[in-house]
Amino acid sequence: MKKITLTLQPLTAEAFADFGDVIDIANSNTIIPINYGRTDRHQHIATVDTADNDGEPIISIFHSQPVSLPFTIKVMERHPQGSQAFINMENNPYVVVVGRAGDFDVEQLQAFLVRSDQGVNYHKGSWHHYSLCLDGPTRFAVVDRLGPGDNCDEEIIPEHIELVVDH
Amino acid sequence: MKKITLTLQPLTAEAFADFGDVIDIANSNTIIPINYGRTDRHQHIATVDTADNDGEPIISIFHSQPVSLPFTIKVMERHPQGSQAFINMENNPYVVVVGRAGDFDVEQLQAFLVRSDQGVNYHKGSWHHYSLCLDGPTRFAVVDRLGPGDNCDEEIIPEHIELVVDH
Repeated sequence: MKKITLTLQPLTAEAFADFGDVIDIANSNTIIPINYGRTDRHQHIATVDTADNDGEPIISIFHSQPVSLPFTIKVMERHPQGSQAFINMENNPYVVVVGRAGDFDVEQLQAFLVRSDQGVNYHKGSWHHYSLCLDGPTRFAVVDRLGPGDNCDEEIIPEHIELVVDH
Repeated sequence: MKKITLTLQPLTAEAFADFGDVIDIANSNTIIPINYGRTDRHQHIATVDTADNDGEPIISIFHSQPVSLPFTIKVMERHPQGSQAFINMENNPYVVVVGRAGDFDVEQLQAFLVRSDQGVNYHKGSWHHYSLCLDGPTRFAVVDRLGPGDNCDEEIIPEHIELVVDH
């Protein structure tokens, strides 16, 4: 048995760039004043990439039960046909575990702590674990793809590897 | 001078149906268990309608300064080329003021109090005021359209009408 421990990193746009977009005003390149000066529009922080193969973008809510750390990762997933954005509707932080798009490599996974005021947008094909909320049941507004064809691949972590995410 | 006072209504899917979608698990028709039982996916609560005229869906953050009630409405807007969803990233409630798509009618506007755990998705062409957050500066994740052509019409409230939103 080989043990791999993924330690939580802070979520920044730079660190997350290989996996997706960080939805956070700290990750803003273009600020447009609107609403007669009452609002700053931090423009185009994430792209919704769902149009291939007659896909359309939809908004759903994922209502998830919390987990405790350390947490053992058993399976990872990817959506080959579209991006998937998570916007936290609660005050709870959560954990994302990700890997680069392409062939799955258990040795190259990374884990990030997402503050409650941040969101993520997984790029099409990025490997990720389902969202791991920490302090209580959490609702996420999710922007992803509705359309024809299978849009979820899974990869089981090999039995000889113990993959754990921890503080 | 004619005074019109819009009194805040609670936001429900039924009351808001003429203007857009309510992003709230109370407004869920299809619940899909996912993530090995850890998550309920409340499927397709809102549709992102941005594809006309080569438009694409993007996610931005609107960072807005709060207002106090009573608040005088001076101008309304609509986006003729796409839907626009607001998902609150704070714990503050906010106010939406809306009117049906089509010719603007100041006599037919309505105001709703949006709880901090709810979102709204204005349908293409629905008249609305910019989001009025109440208790402090508020960030909204916004899902709307990037693309060619003008996508914002405004309508100034006539000078002989005092239009006020209040509790």
